[in-house]
Amino acid sequence: MNTAQKISRAAGRIRSSDIRDLLQYAQQPGMISMAGGLPAAELFDQAGIQASTQQVLREHHMIALQYGMTEGQPALRQELASLMAQRGCPTDAQDILVTTGSQQALDLIVRTLIDEGDCVVLERPSYLAAIQVLQLAGARMLTLPGDAQGARIDLLPELVGAQRPKLIYVVSNFANPSGACLSLERRKLLLQWAVANQVMVIEDDPYGDLRYRGERLPSLLELARGIPGAESCCGYISTLSKAIAPGLRLGWAVLPPLLRASAVKVKQSMDLHTSSFTQEIAAHYLASGRLAEHLTKVRAAYSSRGEALAQALCVTFGDEIEFNRPAGGMFLWGRFKSGIDTRKLLDIARLEGVIFVPGDTFYADSPDHSSLRLSFVTCTEDQLREGVKRLASAYAEINLDNAELRPLRNSTSFSG
Amino acid sequence: MNTAQKISRAAGRIRSSDIRDLLQYAQQPGMISMAGGLPAAELFDQAGIQASTQQVLREHHMIALQYGMTEGQPALRQELASLMAQRGCPTDAQDILVTTGSQQALDLIVRTLIDEGDCVVLERPSYLAAIQVLQLAGARMLTLPGDAQGARIDLLPELVGAQRPKLIYVVSNFANPSGACLSLERRKLLLQWAVANQVMVIEDDPYGDLRYRGERLPSLLELARGIPGAESCCGYISTLSKAIAPGLRLGWAVLPPLLRASAVKVKQSMDLHTSSFTQEIAAHYLASGRLAEHLTKVRAAYSSRGEALAQALCVTFGDEIEFNRPAGGMFLWGRFKSGIDTRKLLDIARLEGVIFVPGDTFYADSPDHSSLRLSFVTCTEDQLREGVKRLASAYAEINLDNAELRPLRNSTSFSG
Repeated sequence: MNTAQKISRAAGRIRSSDIRDLLQYAQQPGMISMAGGLPAAELFDQAGIQASTQQVLREHHMIALQYGMTEGQPALRQELASLMAQRGCPTDAQDILVTTGSQQALDLIVRTLIDEGDCVVLERPSYLAAIQVLQLAGARMLTLPGDAQGARIDLLPELVGAQRPKLIYVVSNFANPSGACLSLERRKLLLQWAVANQVMVIEDDPYGDLRYRGERLPSLLELARGIPGAESCCGYISTLSKAIAPGLRLGWAVLPPLLRASAVKVKQSMDLHTSSFTQEIAAHYLASGRLAEHLTKVRAAYSSRGEALAQALCVTFGDEIEFNRPAGGMFLWGRFKSGIDTRKLLDIARLEGVIFVPGDTFYADSPDHSSLRLSFVTCTEDQLREGVKRLASAYAEINLDNAELRPLRNSTSFSG
Repeated sequence: MNTAQKISRAAGRIRSSDIRDLLQYAQQPGMISMAGGLPAAELFDQAGIQASTQQVLREHHMIALQYGMTEGQPALRQELASLMAQRGCPTDAQDILVTTGSQQALDLIVRTLIDEGDCVVLERPSYLAAIQVLQLAGARMLTLPGDAQGARIDLLPELVGAQRPKLIYVVSNFANPSGACLSLERRKLLLQWAVANQVMVIEDDPYGDLRYRGERLPSLLELARGIPGAESCCGYISTLSKAIAPGLRLGWAVLPPLLRASAVKVKQSMDLHTSSFTQEIAAHYLASGRLAEHLTKVRAAYSSRGEALAQALCVTFGDEIEFNRPAGGMFLWGRFKSGIDTRKLLDIARLEGVIFVPGDTFYADSPDHSSLRLSFVTCTEDQLREGVKRLASAYAEINLDNAELRPLRNSTSFSG
């Protein structure tokens, strides 16, 4: 019997990503995909990245192509510290740990903090890759329901009860998939609870720079500076994937000193360090000052696309669907009041030429089967309108088939 | 009390790298460092990499800067498959999994296979970063002594006894630190043992392309094709860090199908995928056909440097030191017959202006305190000769101080 390939318990726990499996359909000619989580490639600042790349290779290729420090290239850490200041949270370059995308930051922090069986709190619905990381770690997940103001922090004491979580993970701005921003009041409440209970809070902020309406909210890290004891319970992770380009695989973490020191040792085992080449390019790009103008362009495009999708949904579905009009980020999270199963809807929709992600994918438990995530940033406005039209055809078809199954279900997660 | 930052058992097990700590001295003006594990940066093919980078950004920047497949960019997987064929082991592109350096390949495989407490066999002395990965995983390490023909596979049954290892890890060519190549006979013996005992063998081959004397040996993967049942017990990992540049952070793994499928899911959690930008650049570079000429240049330079170091050691230390004249790779592994403690030698040597890595760093157990690792590829021949002179001064000094402590110790690990 062949047993050499017997996998570890950790590897056996991990679930494959539905989104990954959906990608095969996205390649079909004529398919309108609102299923992806990708930024719009046609908006990449090709000229700016090209200029930075050339200069890095011309001026210090021996540094950019060589092994580097596990913590990250000094030039990039400096630029990311400035970026943190622009986000309202001045940070010392020494406090920045560069990672291979924010995905690695999350895995790294979980490996550094979590033992198998430890309890972790996350919002429901949840960022799928966070669920995967926590499955790999063997964490016990407690999920906190969310609404338009983000995770219901007020329910945290009740949810946790006598358990002692090791970590709370929140996507603070325009969460994937819910699109919600955690309100200021809840941010403060979360920090106070974390200090009182000595629980590490990890704030993931990939989309904060993609706000196109309303006022920026202070990060948990910024607020922590005003709450005694909170700074040592507070970590922040972010990414250049949405601001510059995902292909560079650059993210970073700001962590309290003890945790950071351990995380550096763990990261050394994971990949020695993140690409020094892409780090030097990003450092040069950030120093060039092109980011602000680029983000303005991206925000304008995403805003128009989000608006086009929201309008088309309103016009086409009326009261049948509930959702928040996007104020930032890349996703619209909706739910059909009819209680229709969006996984079944997808089966028909892809024959109609449109795909999306069924909402139940984003639940570690208690899935809402009537929810769905629509990404609006990689389609043109015309494609979005056409996509909604196709979705409506599929919806009509499934409602015909299941006319008897239309009573409203209770929403377990979200009311728009 | 602050307990939010309490780290996991895994993170608590990991040892920091001595080599990392030594790097601070390498920066001192006038210091001759034979302590690093870096390739020679002045030999990087700047023009070739620049040409490939420009072309990638000009011709398909939207692919190169976007998210990519977890398995790797198709173009690079194709080129790595060709590279495997050049290494005597034709491989299907679908069987290649691209990783963020071979360090990630190792961590990934260990996460996919090893549960805490599982038994893993590695050669002694061992690649330091492999020890760290195994510490993080909580593996029980069994170490197999090595000699000039690599790990003593003949001792494997005795070492393992009634235990059931999950994995055997070997660096097959010019191992770090020992510089030894596993002999053909031992390669076959290892595979036969692995099949009989259903143990996965992971062959790490970062230095195989850096052979400057003697005949290439077939990889374990190549040999496995001739041994019934061996292919499903055999994984191969390698890197472009030595062939092209470490700053790209590109490695790869060839794994049997079941293990590969699980590893892809685990990698997705770890960093989604490796930089698509550096992958596309490397794919273009490999397709350009410049690698062969570049490697010829690198091998010639490394060979001269290795020879210069070996000669200087012979002339200066005569019979006091034992080592193998390097036939490839980046390291010379030596041992002082006097039984001198090379960690004490280092303390004096760095005051004399030369550093190296004390050999005991490379042992998970039973360290040989008289051994040392000398990297010869980042110094000029003159620097190497001067470095040996300084080492001799330090050696004379420590011998004066410890004249009474000079009886020979028994070698526990290596006789050159």
